[in-house]
Amino acid sequence: MKASLIIIGNEILSGRTQDKNLSYLANWLNEIGIQLTEVRVIRDEEDVIVETVNHLRKTYDYVFTTGGIGPTHDDITSESIAKAFSVDLEINQGALSILKEYYKDGELTEARMKMTKMPVGSELIENPVSRAPGFKMDNVFVLAGIPGIMQGMLEGARQFLKKGDVVKSKSVDIFTPESNVAEILTNLQAKYSSVEIGSYPFSKENRFGTSIVMRSTSDDQLSKCDTELKELVKNYDTKHC
Amino acid sequence: MKASLIIIGNEILSGRTQDKNLSYLANWLNEIGIQLTEVRVIRDEEDVIVETVNHLRKTYDYVFTTGGIGPTHDDITSESIAKAFSVDLEINQGALSILKEYYKDGELTEARMKMTKMPVGSELIENPVSRAPGFKMDNVFVLAGIPGIMQGMLEGARQFLKKGDVVKSKSVDIFTPESNVAEILTNLQAKYSSVEIGSYPFSKENRFGTSIVMRSTSDDQLSKCDTELKELVKNYDTKHC
Repeated sequence: MKASLIIIGNEILSGRTQDKNLSYLANWLNEIGIQLTEVRVIRDEEDVIVETVNHLRKTYDYVFTTGGIGPTHDDITSESIAKAFSVDLEINQGALSILKEYYKDGELTEARMKMTKMPVGSELIENPVSRAPGFKMDNVFVLAGIPGIMQGMLEGARQFLKKGDVVKSKSVDIFTPESNVAEILTNLQAKYSSVEIGSYPFSKENRFGTSIVMRSTSDDQLSKCDTELKELVKNYDTKHC
Repeated sequence: MKASLIIIGNEILSGRTQDKNLSYLANWLNEIGIQLTEVRVIRDEEDVIVETVNHLRKTYDYVFTTGGIGPTHDDITSESIAKAFSVDLEINQGALSILKEYYKDGELTEARMKMTKMPVGSELIENPVSRAPGFKMDNVFVLAGIPGIMQGMLEGARQFLKKGDVVKSKSVDIFTPESNVAEILTNLQAKYSSVEIGSYPFSKENRFGTSIVMRSTSDDQLSKCDTELKELVKNYDTKHC
């Protein structure tokens, strides 16, 4: 099971806001056996959103979007998703009920009503934090951009997702530059084709080190690869890692 | 002037590593008048890298890549860039000189030699941190993934970049939910088409607030828009923001 994420927001691309949703979603999906395989960060522009959604929803099992479903003029995700699916945008009666319950009389302004408008055919995704829901159209999950709200909505999205084979990981950290273990890793990767071996340099306490990460859906292969790696690098310092 | 960034790395997509290069690059480019317009995060897979690079280099003035130019088996960016440009990968003599000077006799192992291999026609991008250089092919700038090294390489890339019109920004933070100012902002955006007005909710000291960001290449329009906005929201609490 493979998923992609579309981060919609000029504030990410301008460098004003640091995205926190990518790594959260990646880890959350890992736990239910879905691999985040591609991410695109795009501007709040209708044509770009439509094109990106339409490409990715045909390519991956699931597409998640974050951002652009609030009440202001720069929130154009919902209408863009409607365009992508060639359906109308309508007041979603479920969303309307939720907001009517949440806001006092007179508080459900035109701006807030914007948050009830969704593509025809949407299924609601609950928002336990600030009530205004996200929605799902086919395999596209439309979530808020604010991390706390996005994380809450993900729990509401869980019921719609099929679980895949969970990728487990093991890692070994050693105090030597990665070039010193490059050959070992090349050979190990060739031997364990069902394990994805990644090598990531780090520096700590003024010493260079390498973090070796093994990922696989096979417990058996992962365990064998890990055992073999530990034997191969046993002469390097691993303490304090 | 518009740029895109390709973040190459399974460790970002697995959620293991939080990317820090996007926001740094965005801010750095802003200062020289280049807008980061699209970002893609992709896996360490040759076909995907080739296709992504070839699409984006035709779409944007500049393309930056981060990650995958180290000495290990999972570093496949350089050979993928060569494939994208349909040229051979060769030992770059400039890169070889730099590494020969840096490493003692016998230390320039086969793994480290991998870092001298670049597409035919590459121009070197200096690496003041750990020496092994990045490179430029046409409008594609191939940089390291480690933030400290990537940031150093960017200074070496500066000489190749044409400056564009710098986007300036002003922001006003007020303590009210964004739905309360949505109509004001819609009207203001309609009046100032050359200013991009973004609205971003926040919560601070248990109160909801809205950060309104105005961005424009025109000082005059930006200043007028800012003055008008401040007048329109003067009744909202702005202190402590």
